[in-house]
Amino acid sequence: MVYAEILAGGTGSRMGNTEVPKQFMKLGSKPIIIHTIEQFVVHDKIDQIIVVVPKAWINNTKDLIKKYIYQAEYIAVIEGGPTRNESLVNGIEWIEQNNGINDEDIIVTHDAVRPFLSYRIIADNITAAQQYGAADTVIPAVDTIVMSKNNSEIFEIPIRGHMYQGQTPQSFNIKLFKQTYLKLTETEKEILTDAAKIMVIKDKVVKLVFGESYNIKVTTSYDLILANSILENLL
Amino acid sequence: MVYAEILAGGTGSRMGNTEVPKQFMKLGSKPIIIHTIEQFVVHDKIDQIIVVVPKAWINNTKDLIKKYIYQAEYIAVIEGGPTRNESLVNGIEWIEQNNGINDEDIIVTHDAVRPFLSYRIIADNITAAQQYGAADTVIPAVDTIVMSKNNSEIFEIPIRGHMYQGQTPQSFNIKLFKQTYLKLTETEKEILTDAAKIMVIKDKVVKLVFGESYNIKVTTSYDLILANSILENLL
Repeated sequence: MVYAEILAGGTGSRMGNTEVPKQFMKLGSKPIIIHTIEQFVVHDKIDQIIVVVPKAWINNTKDLIKKYIYQAEYIAVIEGGPTRNESLVNGIEWIEQNNGINDEDIIVTHDAVRPFLSYRIIADNITAAQQYGAADTVIPAVDTIVMSKNNSEIFEIPIRGHMYQGQTPQSFNIKLFKQTYLKLTETEKEILTDAAKIMVIKDKVVKLVFGESYNIKVTTSYDLILANSILENLL
Repeated sequence: MVYAEILAGGTGSRMGNTEVPKQFMKLGSKPIIIHTIEQFVVHDKIDQIIVVVPKAWINNTKDLIKKYIYQAEYIAVIEGGPTRNESLVNGIEWIEQNNGINDEDIIVTHDAVRPFLSYRIIADNITAAQQYGAADTVIPAVDTIVMSKNNSEIFEIPIRGHMYQGQTPQSFNIKLFKQTYLKLTETEKEILTDAAKIMVIKDKVVKLVFGESYNIKVTTSYDLILANSILENLL
């Protein structure tokens, strides 16, 4: 089985709008999260979609899916946890309770606020997770990356050709991810806010999958302007 | 003296248009490079502007400046070198020949294709270069930064709070930069394509100046769409 888990647990404080989380704001004619879900709905390799949202938004999300998406029956809407990784694990627990987990099962986890991922990116994630156990979507760093440890002076400027900007999806063999996550201490869980980093720290292979520059994360009002521009001009 | 050096030496092969270098493409009603030069023209702390372009574009650039910019007399247009750093050094040589270099003189170097820098960013660059000898404009990394040494698997995911995306301006005490640059071996000159990295490698302090997310570099057709959107919606 190949599962898609769309992570929409955040409440979007960065948008400067605390009433409507950013994933529910409109982009063109539809909420951002609907654009994102649609990319997985039209993908022939995805068997089940799990959407993780804040508790207060579960019913609203179900209504939106009914309103905008044909064939809504294989989309589950469940409650998120207090952190991104706990939300991710909630999705895995839903799978365990409803279907059980088989050795080959894959989960493709994706930010609800990255509505522009492509069919090709999803396909590459599935293939890489099946072959290597874990995959992370990246693009080569556009800018020079600078490191500072004191937020004041440059500590290092690493070789640009080695640096990438992380996007999502992040995809995992579910059993491997669960086993690795369960071995983390509570302190590690607090520090390791990035799911791919959990695998890297525990010496698992994480294969790079190449994203697209337009696969942006919509988290600020500025991003929303860019997203509308991408929708109108590039897609 | 405070000099601005606008680096437009590139021929823009990334834009998919080999005839007109990207800095000469139109953004709104004017070429990108004119937007950029204007930001320095209106700045009261800049004493002299030096624009570095490919040899074939010197006359055209002079014509554009006459056409679009009032008070063009303190803008010099000179020929670029084969690399970014050599173009930068050409500007310093122009200063040396025309005005000489004093201990306190500062050079604010900026990409011609970043038309949206602000008055505040230029002012902060000048102050930081005067106080610390070198400054680099950055924004905190928006995405998780991922490191791979083989373009295939993740090697490391550094702490996100330590990572920044480099922009320009990069600003220097001219004497300090020249002394440091002259000490580089030919091999170092080939490797150190970033001017701030020259200072870091040679253990000089490079102060961080905070840029803006909209201070983007326009190098692809996608960037040009975003740039037009920024121009229409944000400025």
